Formats: sequence, structure tokens, C-alpha cells
Amino acid sequence: MYEDEPRDVRIPAEVLSDLTVRALCAAGASQEQARVAAEVLVAADLRGVESHGVARLAHYYVDRLRCGEINRSPSIGVVTETQSTALLEGDGGLGFAVGRVAMDLATDKARATGAGFVSARNSTHFGAAFPYARWAAELGMVGISMTTGGRIVAPCGGTRRGIGANALCIAAPCRDAAPFVLDMATSVVAGGKLEVAARRGRRAPAGWILDREGAPCTDPREYFLGGALLPLGAAAETGGYKGLGLAFAVDVLCSMLSGAPPSPILEKGANHFFGALRIDAFVDAEAFRDRMDACIRALKAGGQPDGGEITYAGELEEALEHKRRAAGIPLHPSVVTSLRLMCDELGIEADLPD
Amino acid sequence: MYEDEPRDVRIPAEVLSDLTVRALCAAGASQEQARVAAEVLVAADLRGVESHGVARLAHYYVDRLRCGEINRSPSIGVVTETQSTALLEGDGGLGFAVGRVAMDLATDKARATGAGFVSARNSTHFGAAFPYARWAAELGMVGISMTTGGRIVAPCGGTRRGIGANALCIAAPCRDAAPFVLDMATSVVAGGKLEVAARRGRRAPAGWILDREGAPCTDPREYFLGGALLPLGAAAETGGYKGLGLAFAVDVLCSMLSGAPPSPILEKGANHFFGALRIDAFVDAEAFRDRMDACIRALKAGGQPDGGEITYAGELEEALEHKRRAAGIPLHPSVVTSLRLMCDELGIEADLPD
Repeated sequence: MYEDEPRDVRIPAEVLSDLTVRALCAAGASQEQARVAAEVLVAADLRGVESHGVARLAHYYVDRLRCGEINRSPSIGVVTETQSTALLEGDGGLGFAVGRVAMDLATDKARATGAGFVSARNSTHFGAAFPYARWAAELGMVGISMTTGGRIVAPCGGTRRGIGANALCIAAPCRDAAPFVLDMATSVVAGGKLEVAARRGRRAPAGWILDREGAPCTDPREYFLGGALLPLGAAAETGGYKGLGLAFAVDVLCSMLSGAPPSPILEKGANHFFGALRIDAFVDAEAFRDRMDACIRALKAGGQPDGGEITYAGELEEALEHKRRAAGIPLHPSVVTSLRLMCDELGIEADLPD
Repeated sequence: MYEDEPRDVRIPAEVLSDLTVRALCAAGASQEQARVAAEVLVAADLRGVESHGVARLAHYYVDRLRCGEINRSPSIGVVTETQSTALLEGDGGLGFAVGRVAMDLATDKARATGAGFVSARNSTHFGAAFPYARWAAELGMVGISMTTGGRIVAPCGGTRRGIGANALCIAAPCRDAAPFVLDMATSVVAGGKLEVAARRGRRAPAGWILDREGAPCTDPREYFLGGALLPLGAAAETGGYKGLGLAFAVDVLCSMLSGAPPSPILEKGANHFFGALRIDAFVDAEAFRDRMDACIRALKAGGQPDGGEITYAGELEEALEHKRRAAGIPLHPSVVTSLRLMCDELGIEADLPD
């Protein structure tokens, strides 16, 4: 997880959110699209997922909207549906907007039948996966969100980029404990973590990447020169075929079920998958929350006698979010610079502290 | 994957299946329960999953049925349901039978609404996860099956057993390619792989287990003396928190949604979760199969120039199943001995080759 560094500039979440909305609107997105995008991007920064936050605003979203690579006025709509499923066409629009429509559809269907599942094609990068699943969790459901990622992962047994850094998230509410929110790339780490490592001059730990020649290495710059990420589990002996299998499973749900090219083939854009299971369709929803807390207590009771702590998915991120809502989001100076340059190009006020 | 060894005894699948049915019936199970159990156990042996096959028949199932730890006449039934979901009570019966009822319910609901999801509590070990998901795939659905496992995994950051070796499977049909079948423990390997390593006198690769004191080790016997498995990803730096998160997610679906104790608390038995998504609710089911094959071809095209091959989940297992259906299933002599002893105790004919 991201650590603050002395040079970082602290900026209030509201300021970043406002800037994101204004920038995306100036780049041609609708107010509604821009507001969802801001919610998702700033949520990532609040929770320490620097790799999926506003650091990518200028080049991933604004530039692509301006040049038309992302459709500024997409017709996002249902292609076909049943009581509990739907296939959604993203029309090349901002992934955030596609994700919002899809997750709303999934939760609507779950309200009616207990379960709702939506596969979405022809979308674009939707940021971090967790905000979508968390929306469902906030409605008393188990939320699921998945997306294909760029083809930057070497399949277990391979030496070159061959499958997407596909990601999946599952979220569920607790009582007093922070919600369970597992948001993970099916690679050892997300590609964005290499961007962060390179930006901050850090080595990549052993087991993360292969260099251009397919040999293990620890220089994050090699990744940007044509190297590849390893799947979760890394080598076959330590379960790398499981990371590859999970990536493939995400493609089955996002791409195969939506009729779109999967990540080993897809050249640009992304496909997603969303699910919602209404907790009170199975058990009492209030008792569920209490039992989540009890499960977490039991898990933590296995911590080390010397005080080493066991944490669960979403716990540290929730604590960081509380802290950053109060104290602001620390951004690397190069990110602040990229935002200022973006504002200049768009002819809007940056309105950022020095 | 399992390799044949010279001492192994080859036994036809039908012989093992027949023996399994007779043994379980002699131990008090119904014909129907015994037939499902035989299908699941022999399917595991056919696909090289020696850890989940008939090697466990005597001690995991027959012994527990005989002493009443597994309910010989369970009332397996729906506690509550909606159009697309159900909660199933397993009544302490054989997990195989619970799994069969649950998966049939999930696929029935998927036929009606597009999606069916069933959480099952108070069950027992259901063998390998893949046969359940594969039944759905054979019906033109994406099949999902999950189960809690014994509390034998050290949570990422911990040094002692604290969460289950929870497992998940997702399966989908292809055209000419073998079906995609990802069946994985959320630990680096399943506990049964240590049974196999110990039985066959092999070391455990680095990154699989911790010893009794919580230190990394490679002697599989340490695991049986109180050591622990590591979660998929192993150390935190290489994604061990993802393996832990996946294990927790399986508990959310199997245990939290079914109202049963989760693996950090559960002392015996198991909870499961099953899902089915009708492919033709989303896209043309025939085109889906063709596109699965195309995805696999694209993935494989990234193999090494020197002929190193990339394989996907289910591929090698399917090839092995064809081979073993023709040539028989190789069993370690100690497994054959355990089956003979079991037959003696039950007073039935072993009917096994020497």
C-alpha cells in the first residue's frame, strides 16, 4: 500500500473531485458521466490505490475523450435481458458510465429475483473495480465487479504478454468492521503498481515481472520496454496457473458472455461483468452483518503473539479513506504537474494548492 | 499434476466406481448418494486429482458414515428461496449429495430466470469442486462451485492455521477444445497435495508451507505436525493477501450467505456455494463455444518460439481423463491396501486386481 512521501502535495478530495468533473466535461463528457468518473477515481486515491486514481486522469481519460478514442456521447443500452441477467452495449463510452448503468441494472434485478448479473461489452477502462461492487454492498447485497485489463500479463509457462491484467472485486457489508472489499488484479500486482514504482524510483520485488527477453527481473522500467507481469502465484510450482485461470475466468464472464473479443485478442477498450446477490434473499441481513464481524474477529485472533496483526481485504483501505477525507490526498509532484498541464490545455482553472 | 509411478496399480474407472458405490452403501448411504459420490471421486482420479479421489474413500467418507459423523439419512432441503436464489440445509449428510441437489436447483433457476445461485450449509466434504460446475457447463451454462475447506491455511501475515483451504471452480463449455475448468484451492496448493507428497516421499516446494513454529519449510511432514499452508500468492509482497481475500470471499458466499459458521470458526463439516448462468441468456450459445476456442488459440499463440506450450485450466486434465478412461487409473499401492482393508471391515468383496 501507498506510503506518503515528504514531497507529496496534499489536496482535499472535494478539490480533486471538482477538478475531475470540470476536466472531463471540458473534454466532452456529460455532467453525469463526469460525476461518476470523479467518484470512482477519487475513491481510488482516498483508499491508497494511487495506480487507479487521478494520476491517470490526463492521459487515460481526458486525452482519449478529446481525440475521440473514447466516445463522448455513447448510447449505452441493453442488448438483451432476462429476469436476472442482461447484456449491455457500452458503445465505446467512458467505462465509469457503463459501470454505473450496469451495476444499477444488476442491483435492480437482484431486488426483483434475488440475483442480478450483467455482462458489458465495448466499454473502456472503468478505473478501480471496487466502487461498483461497493455500491451493491451499500444496498445490502454481495457485490461483484470484474473487468478485462490490458494485455500485459505473461501466461503461466509463457514469456511474453498474452492475457489481460484482468481484475475482480467482491464486496459485502459488515456491522462495525469495515466492509469486506477484495479488489485484485489476477496478476501478481496491477500494471499501475509498476507505474507507481517507476515514478517513485523503487525496484519491483522478485516475482512481479519478466524483462523483454522473458527473464525474471526487478527493474520496473523493463516492464515499460516490453516486459510482462506475472500472473498471481508467479511460477507454476507456486500456483501461477491459478492466476492465469482466474484471468481467463474473468474473460469468460466479461468477454465471452458479452460477445466481445477477450483480452488475449482485444486491442483496445474493455469488457466488464457485474453481479449482485441480495443478502436477505438468503438470510437475515442484519444477522449477516453481525456474523461478518464475528468472522473477522476470529480471523484476527490468529495473529502473532508478538502483536503482528492479520488484516482483511478492505480494512486498511477503509482506515486510510477516513484519514484522507480529513487530511487530504497526497499526490506525487509529477501528478500535480500533469494535472496543471491538462488544465492549461483544456483552458480551465487548475485551482490546486502549490 | 500427478505422474504415474512404476509401483502404481492400474484399475479401470468402472471397477473403482462400483467399489465406491458398494462401500458407501455398506456404510449406510443410500444408492443415490453413493452413486453421486462415486461419480465425483472417480472423476477426480480420472483427471489426476489424486488428492481428492478414492484415496480418501476409506477415512474421509466410509469411516465417518459408519461412526455417524456424517448423517446417513439426511433431510436435504430448501430453507428459503427466491426466483434466482436458494438456501439449502445439508443436515450433515454426504457433501456429494448436498452438492448434487444444490447444483440441480441452481441450474433449474438459471433455466427460468437466466441465473441461479444456491448457498448450502451444514454439509460435509464434497470432494473436488469441478464436477458440480461441470454439470452446469454441460447444460450450456457457466457453472460455479465453491466450498469451505479445513482450517489449515495461515492468513497472510499470520504464522498459524486460521482460515480454510477454501476452493472455487468455474467451468464453461468450448467447441472442439476441452472445456474450461478452473478448480483451485485459494491456498498455494490444496492440503491433499501434501498428503500426496508425504505418501510419495517428495519435498514440498518453497512457498507452500510453514512449520509448527511458523517458519517456511519444505518437509511435507511438518504440515501434518501442525504446520500450515500458505495462501495463494504466499508472502504479502507477492500477493498473499489476494489468496487470503479469495478464501474470505468463498466464506462470504458459502458461509455468510448460508447462515453457517465460516472456516475461521467452523470445527467440522463444510458449507458450499453453487451458481449457474445460462449462456444463451446473454449471447448465442453456439457462437460462445466457437469464441471460447478462438480465445484459447490466441492464448496459446503466445507460447515460446522453442515450443514451450501454454496450457489452460482443464486442458491437461481432460487429456488425462481420456487416457485413463482407456487405460485405467493408477493408484499408489498404499491406497489399494487401504481399499482392501476397508472392504474387509465392511464385509464386501474388494474385486481389485493385484
